[in-house]
Amino acid sequence: LLSWDQETNLPEAAGEYRAEQLAQLSGWAHRRGTADEVRGWLEEAEAAGFSPHSVEGVNLREARRVFEREVRLSSRLVEEFARVSSQGHQAWVRARQQNDFSIFAPFLGRLLELSREKADCWGYEGERYDALLEGYEPGARTAEVAKLLADLAGEQSALLKEVATKSRETELARPWSDPEACFPQAAQEVFNHEVAAAFGFDFSAGRIDASAHPFCTTLGPRDVRLTTRYDERDFTNSLYSVLHEVGHGLYEQGLMGEYFGLGAGQAVSLGVHESQSRLWENKVGRTVGFWEHWWPRALELFPGAAGASPEKLARHVLRVRPSLIRVEADEVSYDLHIVLRFELERALLDGVLAVEDLPAAWNRRFEELFGLRVPDDASGCLQDIHWSMGGFGYFPTYTLGNLYSAELFAAARLERPELEDGLAKGNYAQLLSWLRGKIHRPGSTWTASELMRRATGRVPSASAHLEYLRGKYLG
Amino acid sequence: LLSWDQETNLPEAAGEYRAEQLAQLSGWAHRRGTADEVRGWLEEAEAAGFSPHSVEGVNLREARRVFEREVRLSSRLVEEFARVSSQGHQAWVRARQQNDFSIFAPFLGRLLELSREKADCWGYEGERYDALLEGYEPGARTAEVAKLLADLAGEQSALLKEVATKSRETELARPWSDPEACFPQAAQEVFNHEVAAAFGFDFSAGRIDASAHPFCTTLGPRDVRLTTRYDERDFTNSLYSVLHEVGHGLYEQGLMGEYFGLGAGQAVSLGVHESQSRLWENKVGRTVGFWEHWWPRALELFPGAAGASPEKLARHVLRVRPSLIRVEADEVSYDLHIVLRFELERALLDGVLAVEDLPAAWNRRFEELFGLRVPDDASGCLQDIHWSMGGFGYFPTYTLGNLYSAELFAAARLERPELEDGLAKGNYAQLLSWLRGKIHRPGSTWTASELMRRATGRVPSASAHLEYLRGKYLG
Repeated sequence: LLSWDQETNLPEAAGEYRAEQLAQLSGWAHRRGTADEVRGWLEEAEAAGFSPHSVEGVNLREARRVFEREVRLSSRLVEEFARVSSQGHQAWVRARQQNDFSIFAPFLGRLLELSREKADCWGYEGERYDALLEGYEPGARTAEVAKLLADLAGEQSALLKEVATKSRETELARPWSDPEACFPQAAQEVFNHEVAAAFGFDFSAGRIDASAHPFCTTLGPRDVRLTTRYDERDFTNSLYSVLHEVGHGLYEQGLMGEYFGLGAGQAVSLGVHESQSRLWENKVGRTVGFWEHWWPRALELFPGAAGASPEKLARHVLRVRPSLIRVEADEVSYDLHIVLRFELERALLDGVLAVEDLPAAWNRRFEELFGLRVPDDASGCLQDIHWSMGGFGYFPTYTLGNLYSAELFAAARLERPELEDGLAKGNYAQLLSWLRGKIHRPGSTWTASELMRRATGRVPSASAHLEYLRGKYLG
Repeated sequence: LLSWDQETNLPEAAGEYRAEQLAQLSGWAHRRGTADEVRGWLEEAEAAGFSPHSVEGVNLREARRVFEREVRLSSRLVEEFARVSSQGHQAWVRARQQNDFSIFAPFLGRLLELSREKADCWGYEGERYDALLEGYEPGARTAEVAKLLADLAGEQSALLKEVATKSRETELARPWSDPEACFPQAAQEVFNHEVAAAFGFDFSAGRIDASAHPFCTTLGPRDVRLTTRYDERDFTNSLYSVLHEVGHGLYEQGLMGEYFGLGAGQAVSLGVHESQSRLWENKVGRTVGFWEHWWPRALELFPGAAGASPEKLARHVLRVRPSLIRVEADEVSYDLHIVLRFELERALLDGVLAVEDLPAAWNRRFEELFGLRVPDDASGCLQDIHWSMGGFGYFPTYTLGNLYSAELFAAARLERPELEDGLAKGNYAQLLSWLRGKIHRPGSTWTASELMRRATGRVPSASAHLEYLRGKYLG
């Protein structure tokens, strides 16, 4: 709640104290969670011999895994990390506003030091990055991720060129836009709420607020909070952020609330989490069918959209072109943004790249990947929130989410051939119920890759994702 | 923050878990705050012999006072009280919405039991109510409050009749209203923000949100949060709630932040707190001068107010007539609402009045005091938030606040004869700086009555309040 509030409501001058609150509470929670008596409880429970995939077995396995990670850290390190990540986040907000990397640089340096210290406490077999990645995607390894991303980079760069060529030949490059139109935030809120509710998000157990950077967080078994940001010139910006966060929210609301905080009631990995958000955002929301269904309602709420049509809106949200900002990137170029961040954060962590050289390194590599010059750090290396809070190792889970979401969508269509027709008619319950059964309710019963194998019948790879992109953008 | 969030943001279904969170955190905080080592620290610090009104002396005296109160309670009782007051609050919200006292009654009964248990742990010389009153207004005694309120009830009933007679003869009874007008919440937010900032509220260290019941709470040394509620038919409702809460907020922002959480940086009593809110709301805001100054801006933001004028708006907010709802009561009848609540909660606590008889007792006594029939419990005994959270002993501080605010305003005018002319021109800094010096910065250095004596040069009584009311409403 302290973190959610920091993003949504905190007065500017209250930041210093908030960092201290977060540090103190993190330290207390860490001391309680790693006390000797907790170890005793774990040993006693383990001696009872629960079957490994029973609720008790899963809860115990996850509690042990978390305990073993936490107990390797000192409470001082946990406190200091909480403090500096709160301070770093606030410095980054200012740095981004003022387009001045030097405001954020010292905090980035300190967060890297603390992250190295954490990684060394946890230990690793391959490289240091593994220890951090483990916190977001248990079981994943840096070397595999690096290979996957390198392969994808090649495939998606080629695809991007093909799509660009095709776009020039078709209407795809000329989306709807009306520089005069204004879409008041209040109307956007109504529309977003209605679409989110139609997808299945339960507003009696959740809400949507505004924040600089859209996110989803869970504050209790029936308290899931999404955020978005509003642009009164283009209502699709807030909408697609909501559709994305609703995907996360549906996963959280589909977990078994009676095991909140325990393995059986917890999401298995950030990659699987991201598969849910990308699925609802892109496979469901970024389609002609979506706009055919929602067009009448959009027109009621947004008189400024009168010059559009379902087809024009679909073209608008399906446009493909290299862009500076990750969260506004199209599906075809999205993973190239991840490639960039993964390479840079791995180099920062290893000390191969110095903090002060980050902006130049970002801009150079960005131009190689996208053929675009980065005009300033605010739209370059300062654009994302993750590093500001010390979230090194997080970015690869976005690409895993893309791969998983393509696998899941293909499997769901195969099992339920009428699925896509239903979605185009606004029937979202069928997809949700399939995901509830295959992904949400199992919680952390299985590892992420085993969960995916059970849901799709195959070992996850990049092929479904590439096939999906080719079909959608070149088909 | 958990409590603030419960009032402003909490999804409906999240209430049960929130009650549990509040209970657990209250219990932990209680256990830490009453640990033997804390007693040791206090003894050690006391042995150092700080002078009693030095910062250290005050911090120590207050820490000791709080410790002695807390250590008399068991952590179980503290936890249970936090749990039931959260549940009770949620039940009360539903009871009020559905106008059904029976939904709330069991929680009220349980909160009374727990409050008696607390009072008995704390001990008292006079009566049980003393032990609760001490938590809100240290040093005040029930017998004195009872006498004060009984005297006031007589005086203010008589005054109310006189004003009513006079009103019938003048325009005062016919305030401005326009049943067709609509004042959008967004415009109200802008106006409230501008007036609050002009009064001196620092928005870099605070904010205003919406809640069912306006309040002010402080989450950190530079984090003061106000709330209000909006009525699109009458923009003065949200405005005067804001002016009231701004008074509380200015007090909190005027405390010495470097001693946050300690005596020297803490408000001395709720009576003194309320003196600040009533002062800014009524002595500053509920005047013709206020509307002469703010009329041009109000007209810009509210085209619907075009039919009004500064005089008509002033009459609208100065109208005097018995009303069902305390927070909408005029200044002349306000304390009669407190008389009613004080009598009833004292009887409830003593067990002289049974919970199930509360609605009938309320309605009977209300008719005696105001000559009005209460149509339903939602506008009767369910209207206030205080009992829903177990806040027995809180209400008398409202009347103390009225008395104190009249004393302070009279003293400030005497010391600074140009004060009122300045206020009418929108110069609020002079009053704020006087209050900062006399009331805010001292924190809890002096007892409430000593602080008042130092600020005004006399022992507080009801005479300034009655004189103020006569001057304003009969003058």
